[in-house]
Amino acid sequence: MQIFETQEEVPEIREQLHRVGITNLRTIARINWKGRVYTFLPLFEVTIDLPADKKGIHMSRLVESITDAMSEAIEEEVQNIHTSLEELGRCIIKHLEGKHPHNRAEVWIKTHLIIPREAPASGRMSYEPYDVEVGVIKNEDGSLEKVLRVRVVGNTVCPHAMANNNGKTHIQRAIGELEVRTTFEGDIALEELIDVVESSFSNPTYTLLKTVDENAVVQGMFANPKFVEDVAREIFARAKERFKGRIHVKVISNESIHKHDVIAETWS
Amino acid sequence: MQIFETQEEVPEIREQLHRVGITNLRTIARINWKGRVYTFLPLFEVTIDLPADKKGIHMSRLVESITDAMSEAIEEEVQNIHTSLEELGRCIIKHLEGKHPHNRAEVWIKTHLIIPREAPASGRMSYEPYDVEVGVIKNEDGSLEKVLRVRVVGNTVCPHAMANNNGKTHIQRAIGELEVRTTFEGDIALEELIDVVESSFSNPTYTLLKTVDENAVVQGMFANPKFVEDVAREIFARAKERFKGRIHVKVISNESIHKHDVIAETWS
Amino acid sequence: MQIFETQEEVPEIREQLHRVGITNLRTIARINWKGRVYTFLPLFEVTIDLPADKKGIHMSRLVESITDAMSEAIEEEVQNIHTSLEELGRCIIKHLEGKHPHNRAEVWIKTHLIIPREAPASGRMSYEPYDVEVGVIKNEDGSLEKVLRVRVVGNTVCPHAMANNNGKTHIQRAIGELEVRTTFEGDIALEELIDVVESSFSNPTYTLLKTVDENAVVQGMFANPKFVEDVAREIFARAKERFKGRIHVKVISNESIHKHDVIAETWS
Amino acid sequence: MQIFETQEEVPEIREQLHRVGITNLRTIARINWKGRVYTFLPLFEVTIDLPADKKGIHMSRLVESITDAMSEAIEEEVQNIHTSLEELGRCIIKHLEGKHPHNRAEVWIKTHLIIPREAPASGRMSYEPYDVEVGVIKNEDGSLEKVLRVRVVGNTVCPHAMANNNGKTHIQRAIGELEVRTTFEGDIALEELIDVVESSFSNPTYTLLKTVDENAVVQGMFANPKFVEDVAREIFARAKERFKGRIHVKVISNESIHKHDVIAETWS
Repeated sequence: MQIFETQEEVPEIREQLHRVGITNLRTIARINWKGRVYTFLPLFEVTIDLPADKKGIHMSRLVESITDAMSEAIEEEVQNIHTSLEELGRCIIKHLEGKHPHNRAEVWIKTHLIIPREAPASGRMSYEPYDVEVGVIKNEDGSLEKVLRVRVVGNTVCPHAMANNNGKTHIQRAIGELEVRTTFEGDIALEELIDVVESSFSNPTYTLLKTVDENAVVQGMFANPKFVEDVAREIFARAKERFKGRIHVKVISNESIHKHDVIAETWS
Repeated sequence: MQIFETQEEVPEIREQLHRVGITNLRTIARINWKGRVYTFLPLFEVTIDLPADKKGIHMSRLVESITDAMSEAIEEEVQNIHTSLEELGRCIIKHLEGKHPHNRAEVWIKTHLIIPREAPASGRMSYEPYDVEVGVIKNEDGSLEKVLRVRVVGNTVCPHAMANNNGKTHIQRAIGELEVRTTFEGDIALEELIDVVESSFSNPTYTLLKTVDENAVVQGMFANPKFVEDVAREIFARAKERFKGRIHVKVISNESIHKHDVIAETWS
Repeated sequence: MQIFETQEEVPEIREQLHRVGITNLRTIARINWKGRVYTFLPLFEVTIDLPADKKGIHMSRLVESITDAMSEAIEEEVQNIHTSLEELGRCIIKHLEGKHPHNRAEVWIKTHLIIPREAPASGRMSYEPYDVEVGVIKNEDGSLEKVLRVRVVGNTVCPHAMANNNGKTHIQRAIGELEVRTTFEGDIALEELIDVVESSFSNPTYTLLKTVDENAVVQGMFANPKFVEDVAREIFARAKERFKGRIHVKVISNESIHKHDVIAETWS
Repeated sequence: MQIFETQEEVPEIREQLHRVGITNLRTIARINWKGRVYTFLPLFEVTIDLPADKKGIHMSRLVESITDAMSEAIEEEVQNIHTSLEELGRCIIKHLEGKHPHNRAEVWIKTHLIIPREAPASGRMSYEPYDVEVGVIKNEDGSLEKVLRVRVVGNTVCPHAMANNNGKTHIQRAIGELEVRTTFEGDIALEELIDVVESSFSNPTYTLLKTVDENAVVQGMFANPKFVEDVAREIFARAKERFKGRIHVKVISNESIHKHDVIAETWS
């Protein structure tokens, strides 16, 4: 049977497309980070550019690049599997190079990270969840960049209400997002980004808090009132100090006195 | 040209289906409530039952029932248009009766309601948004029921932390949901459900708060500490007192000291 | 320091609450299913009832029940860890019994499942993602029930349009949901529910399809046109045949000719 | 009583913030477009910059700018109210100028638009919903820009599968997004962006389709097979021809043969 490769035809409208590919593909990923194997069920997005004279890309080859990068890891000794989500992204791009011509490529991997923490007073172990996303971008000149993103749940304690109410104030959950875009080689762990954000709130949050821990968190919050603007500035200043590359910070505070949210955002 | 009515065929698998129809259909609705015309852009779901010996329903007739109910309203004098979302739902069912045989029918309409409130100290006008949903259900015996649902943004102030920290505590946004299922005739306004929920939090929330108002809210919150359990109980007790029918209450508190939420739910 | 147990006080409003607890808590879970260890990052909800004369529950004990059930599994030999999400749920309830008085309890665990499939023509391995949720409910009489839910992505191919257009028709993605509520002991795997749903669409969907596979799927779809009603009936009939317990089926078709969806739903 | 203006203090960390404000605020908006009054319930985001030496902004003044812009419209004759969402955005910025010092400001308004269309064969009236978003940005030099975004539900019909299966193929819902960023003065209606996107799919979609209309849509789809890449190129080429400014196009196709989506994106 003859197979038509419609994708290889010349399209009616000759426009180059920067990003063509697959998205919202959920599959399994295993990472060996500092000697321990972690399993994730991330969402993947993989795109390449499409030149003006080709009608389409071969989508299944992008899926194969993910699958092949995974299988390679599974066939190798566990010690040799990808040591970070970025490494997995780079490996998918490497497989893509053997499968589909392109000038630029992007791999995005979105998942959750669970990190153990000690509760502030009891020292009990608490497992804290974070949303993370990693992008690996191969530019037209062949250079590789990476984008690291974290999303951390914390809080804000209003210093204005505190000043005007004899120490009483309103408090609420806030969400801090930090993105670092940098060269691929730079050695930055997602955990470091999480630390920068988590320590910039009025107080960190914990999954497991006994009464003594809850008291420590409450005391910590009142000792450290912060506007959403203060949280954004602290994340931004510390990220610039600690990481090379372009920084983007966004903090959203789910106000307990309003039905809407307040936001502070900045970037370098 | 002959048109085949595949829907009228006898299906291979003879099972009665309770709910078949259209969902996530967004369109415009106009309601004349107490003499003022309100415009909404709600999401509609309309379903009927399907007997075991018919392959399918005629979906387009459900869409027409919505459109016809609307047109009727637009053609009539503005004073005569539907006086509530429930009335609109009943009118859609009435149109359905002339268009498609069925034994039971449901219409669900989901939208936002904006209600003016006075800020607590300055008296400034504040426009408060609420999520509401109305269902009208025609049972097999022809009787009509209605389901009214509201979702209100408020707050909780932890009395346990307050007792253990000399008046300091953690505070957070909370979401209260109230559902009343009752006969169609009962005269209950969505605004009444909203009032019951909004007044059961530690303090109501407002869109516009000048500093004097913010102070009033903060003072109100500290004077009225409540667990998520307390809020659920107050909504439930007041709803039972005020409304005939089956009551369902759910309150979710977006804890400011945790990354997860806490929940209290009950029903009659 | 004295610790006040505000939760133990008698509340102003004496109403029993059916479900009080924690929700949207994301953490790690490891399951040994048929000898292979799977890692998940599920969302947990754990609730207990609250009698009318207690002001609140001790939320942290619910978190501890999850953590303890996990640690127990980690400390034991890998072969001994929970053999299903339901077993993990039961284990959490068992830990709860030693920590917090209650009459009824519920544990809900929501995650993704990745299952390998062979592509229909090439035989290539494809990893297919499914949304699953498991609930374990301890009733007031101590009896245990479980609720299994799956959500599968498939498709519908309109037989009405096919009959009226000489074999041409409209096709679209559809989502099939199946819930089985039964006694805890019944031996039902989530994979069985997934099979029932996946095989009831016009054709199963696959993550990796080479051209020969894509052709097989297209041919399969045209050979098997189905309304959303047909898919719901097939899932329902086969689930009733295969599983004891109460069955609930819901299929949503993301119509390619409309901006809204169509739905078919039924239950036993 | 003395009121402390904590916002005016000098912050510990002196970093300029580009965007500080309120978000997810739902309220009512009325627009007089070409002589007819439309009512919306949009979500608003309003932000200003914050210089390095001020601790915070006065959030309530941003809310007042929205409220004042509304009231002004309500107090004036209906003919004089804002003639577009962009005009409303500009009016909010104008009110902001009298209330809060700033160097740059942004207003974003997100809502649904319902547009009447004729069904393709029966000529029946169909009301089609679209998601739209409008941004008005005042730059540091005082210049005004606007950003118009639309999101339209359509479809793709795979030409590759059609070539390889004797005219049979897979079809699915697709979502087209178009953004135009341009000077404020340019005269572009959201309806024009919607037209460009809607007419670039294999066929437009309709809310109300009788059998003759459904047939016309099916025939239209098979006569016009398109990859997601083809749809993106057509939107892009036509938008560049029709609108001055920077263009961004993104099309997502909810594949009926896969559980994931495919995507094509480009920009000028």
